[in-house]
Amino acid sequence: MSHTPFPAWPDVAEQLIATATGKTPADTVIKGGKWVNVHTREILDDHDIAVVAGRIACVVPDAGYCTGPETEVIDAQGRYMIPGLCDGHMHIESGMLTPAEFARAVIPHGTTSMFTDPHEIANVLGLEGVRMMHDEALMQPVNIFTQMPSCAPSAPGMETTGYEITPEDVALAMFWPGIIGLGEMMNFPGVSNADPKMLAEIAATQRANKTVGGHYASPDLGPAFAGYVAGGPADDHEGTCEADAVARMRQGMRSMIRLGSAWYDVESQITAITEKGLDPRNMILCTDDCHSGTLVNDGHMNRVVRHAIDCGCDPLVALQMATINTATHFGLEREIGSLTPGRRADVILTSDLKTLPVELVMARGQIVARDGTCLADCPHYDWPDTARRTVRMGKELGPDDFAVKAPAGANAVTANVIGVVENQAPTRALKFELPVTEGRVQATGEVCQIALVERHRATGQVTNAFVSGFGYEGPMAMASTVAHDSHHMIVVGTDAAHMAMAANRLGEVGGGIVIFKDGEERALVELPVAGLMSDSPASEVAAKTDRMMQAMRDCGCTLNNAYMQHSLLALVVIPELRISDLGLVDVRTFEFIPVLEPVS
Amino acid sequence: MSHTPFPAWPDVAEQLIATATGKTPADTVIKGGKWVNVHTREILDDHDIAVVAGRIACVVPDAGYCTGPETEVIDAQGRYMIPGLCDGHMHIESGMLTPAEFARAVIPHGTTSMFTDPHEIANVLGLEGVRMMHDEALMQPVNIFTQMPSCAPSAPGMETTGYEITPEDVALAMFWPGIIGLGEMMNFPGVSNADPKMLAEIAATQRANKTVGGHYASPDLGPAFAGYVAGGPADDHEGTCEADAVARMRQGMRSMIRLGSAWYDVESQITAITEKGLDPRNMILCTDDCHSGTLVNDGHMNRVVRHAIDCGCDPLVALQMATINTATHFGLEREIGSLTPGRRADVILTSDLKTLPVELVMARGQIVARDGTCLADCPHYDWPDTARRTVRMGKELGPDDFAVKAPAGANAVTANVIGVVENQAPTRALKFELPVTEGRVQATGEVCQIALVERHRATGQVTNAFVSGFGYEGPMAMASTVAHDSHHMIVVGTDAAHMAMAANRLGEVGGGIVIFKDGEERALVELPVAGLMSDSPASEVAAKTDRMMQAMRDCGCTLNNAYMQHSLLALVVIPELRISDLGLVDVRTFEFIPVLEPVS
Repeated sequence: MSHTPFPAWPDVAEQLIATATGKTPADTVIKGGKWVNVHTREILDDHDIAVVAGRIACVVPDAGYCTGPETEVIDAQGRYMIPGLCDGHMHIESGMLTPAEFARAVIPHGTTSMFTDPHEIANVLGLEGVRMMHDEALMQPVNIFTQMPSCAPSAPGMETTGYEITPEDVALAMFWPGIIGLGEMMNFPGVSNADPKMLAEIAATQRANKTVGGHYASPDLGPAFAGYVAGGPADDHEGTCEADAVARMRQGMRSMIRLGSAWYDVESQITAITEKGLDPRNMILCTDDCHSGTLVNDGHMNRVVRHAIDCGCDPLVALQMATINTATHFGLEREIGSLTPGRRADVILTSDLKTLPVELVMARGQIVARDGTCLADCPHYDWPDTARRTVRMGKELGPDDFAVKAPAGANAVTANVIGVVENQAPTRALKFELPVTEGRVQATGEVCQIALVERHRATGQVTNAFVSGFGYEGPMAMASTVAHDSHHMIVVGTDAAHMAMAANRLGEVGGGIVIFKDGEERALVELPVAGLMSDSPASEVAAKTDRMMQAMRDCGCTLNNAYMQHSLLALVVIPELRISDLGLVDVRTFEFIPVLEPVS
Repeated sequence: MSHTPFPAWPDVAEQLIATATGKTPADTVIKGGKWVNVHTREILDDHDIAVVAGRIACVVPDAGYCTGPETEVIDAQGRYMIPGLCDGHMHIESGMLTPAEFARAVIPHGTTSMFTDPHEIANVLGLEGVRMMHDEALMQPVNIFTQMPSCAPSAPGMETTGYEITPEDVALAMFWPGIIGLGEMMNFPGVSNADPKMLAEIAATQRANKTVGGHYASPDLGPAFAGYVAGGPADDHEGTCEADAVARMRQGMRSMIRLGSAWYDVESQITAITEKGLDPRNMILCTDDCHSGTLVNDGHMNRVVRHAIDCGCDPLVALQMATINTATHFGLEREIGSLTPGRRADVILTSDLKTLPVELVMARGQIVARDGTCLADCPHYDWPDTARRTVRMGKELGPDDFAVKAPAGANAVTANVIGVVENQAPTRALKFELPVTEGRVQATGEVCQIALVERHRATGQVTNAFVSGFGYEGPMAMASTVAHDSHHMIVVGTDAAHMAMAANRLGEVGGGIVIFKDGEERALVELPVAGLMSDSPASEVAAKTDRMMQAMRDCGCTLNNAYMQHSLLALVVIPELRISDLGLVDVRTFEFIPVLEPVS
């Protein structure tokens, strides 16, 4: 590993004491601020924070006695001093950015601690991919903790991922310095059914005294939920209504409520605190998934805290939910999450607690952002070829690879078609009558073709099927190597030749998203790291993503979140119909069904 | 070690899930109770708790679906179900009982978890003594966690203890199964001055990811306090006023507030919550020191919670302070402290939340007490001779050993006398003119003799001095091997022959407390284990202690807490004057002073 570990409290205790007692001066003093105390839930006017060795030495009414000629003094000018914000659960890959570029994007928003589950790269590169993310995370000037992914593949037997995560991998990773626990245990039916693999992963985490992340995506709060809780997950961020949040907290889990780019689960759940008046200590704010556009235009955890306040939450309580609650949950309350002695000096200066402008950000005692500009170096990991050349298709694809052959002699067939539904993650299992020309099934009308191109093992395999709902018109194709959760390549198009062009183009650039229309490339988002992430700045990725979404519209697509719909078409854990490298999956029954109905 | 470890959550997760989902029946179901939920701070009527393998499988409105023909059903009859109570910091030795007998005394009061610092035995038997306490603790049917003592001796250089605790001992003990952290770091000036030994002990604890107990016994909340906090202690129980509690919580420590047999620090500090309205999550209730009489007559943690409620604290908040707050502090919130799945099934049934009658106690799924009677087996450790023969005086003492020789030719001398002050721990440094007879100084009037008899290394050494304030009359002597913190033997008497009798008697019985008057033994409390503890039931020890205190009164002593005054006379960290095996100590200056002033 190439990082220098940040010194632990006991490594620098002597320095902290020397500064706190006035024997040696602080490196930095923030002077004259309002101390937002998330332990006592108070605001204390006119306090100073003395920092040495990247940690807080003391918070006192007047740090003059620990200020020397070399001490850098920052005048808070009466502004609020709040702890750096923590994101309790998130996936860096959702921003299509490497950890370094993600950090660079969120630091100006005041996020100084992230609990990240590199679940996507785990599907592409396995434990080694997790390790690379973990290593780049530890190189950053802010705290990026890694949750070891638990469920790769998401749906064992229904798809082939690049790599699989085993209980042995989990047990091994628990000893890595940046691993904070187990990533969201998505296989909730597995836990409720005591699946030995899932229980072994949880056990390895519990025995390492680390936190087991949960993911219980079901409205059933009966015995299945009781079984999941009894299995050990310590939190859950899949709740969508007040009853979900309440049930989780009552059962001794922490309720994580999220505001992501496409998740809006804060308003509906925070009423457990603001209206029902429950003890707020077990509620935590998180983003789960943020696109680069959100990071560039709207913010990150500051956006979530601000939103919680707009939903009627007391600002101090909302801040607790993004600082000390999170820290406590992960066993880090003496390390991060409050402005008190010994903790990492992660501090935000803001002039308003309700609108939360992030005017200055300090992380580990260094000023890392001022007025929206990142001032810190966010070093890049030297991603090896194994991570940069992950789109391995085995051959150049041609139009024939995207042909769906009809049974001999048929003029028309009945096809099982994935029906995309606007504003919903679940699809519908539809049936369409499709014409046959020269022995090939033709996608017509609102139906177009979808293909799952194998890209992990260079098998050259293409699985073809049909999809409806995008509204595409004219010859076009769109391809993406972001293809949850196995991250092969999803190609959707109206024309086999365009589909081949799009697929080959992604093979050429090492992955990303591309759109061809009328024989020309209309948009390209290069994601060379694992086919999932870019190591370019968030603003560039956001601009390219904007162009990509415009190109989708230019092809006739009017769906909200059209790109997300595209990238989820292979997510074989969400009903009703999905595609995998193994075929068309009816997720209601977890069975494969034929693309074409047998001729009766 | 002779205990069978209680199975961890992952050991029994499969069983918990099977019961929670209704596949296999619970061992026990508590039916129809009011669920006191310390996570959400709610009372939920009519809930059932299903228990299997000693842990809670689920808490649901109706556990009928996990009740089988073999399931033991306990009808709560609408009573409150509260989590077993936790004592956040305490010394078992203060009860003069072994861990087993202490447990037996407190289980009927609903205490199911204790965080114990075996600091007294550490002074007598060192790490090996801690190990024995730890081992007996792990044999009990309730949860006794051990805090590794940090400060033996309390005052290095000013006394000779039986053994010393080193940073290496601390580092070693952190790997024992029952060690939960470091015991109260009493050397607060040492921490504020970055004493390398103290910092090494704290570092070893922090690196083991365990909790560092604090003890900051000073009203100074300035830089010395800031230095102490920066040093790393995570809690403190020495606060005595609201400002103390507030300061500790603001600085990110947990404020432990205590009601012991002689500590009354709850009422004066709980106003930080009840009046100032601070977030209560960082306040914890504890006892610190309870005599056996208190346990027999008044209760234990139930007494503290009841008192907190009497002081105006909301009962649910008071319960949080004795359950989940404590569990969270020690990193055990997924193990104890709430009635939620996976946790040890430690449950109290009570019909009133304010007066808190403890009607049934379940620990780890077993009924351990009902209506004040302990029903559990509390196994005794097989204390070896090294622990049972710790009063090693080297010889039979005679009156001459207690003679204070006057300078040749003197008819009278000026003596430095320890002045006991009623209701105060500090003594006063007094001077008295004392007559000389046959070359020996005579204790007369309100002055009597005090001797510190070396009992760890059989040196036969007796250190003589004078004390005033007990009011003893007539020939008598009282001896005790409970002699904080080095636990040699303190003998106070009016007559050298009686002093020798008392000392020899304790040598004979292996330690304890004895009073001789008019040539006869008037009371004896045998404490054969390390000279500190009895393995008899608390009721017997309490009865003997009562007789001992009556005998003190019969000798003319009218002081409140007279026995405590006696046992603290060698505590060379509390001003003004104390005795140690090395001489008379002026604790104001940490210097030895002569018993007799030089003749000018």
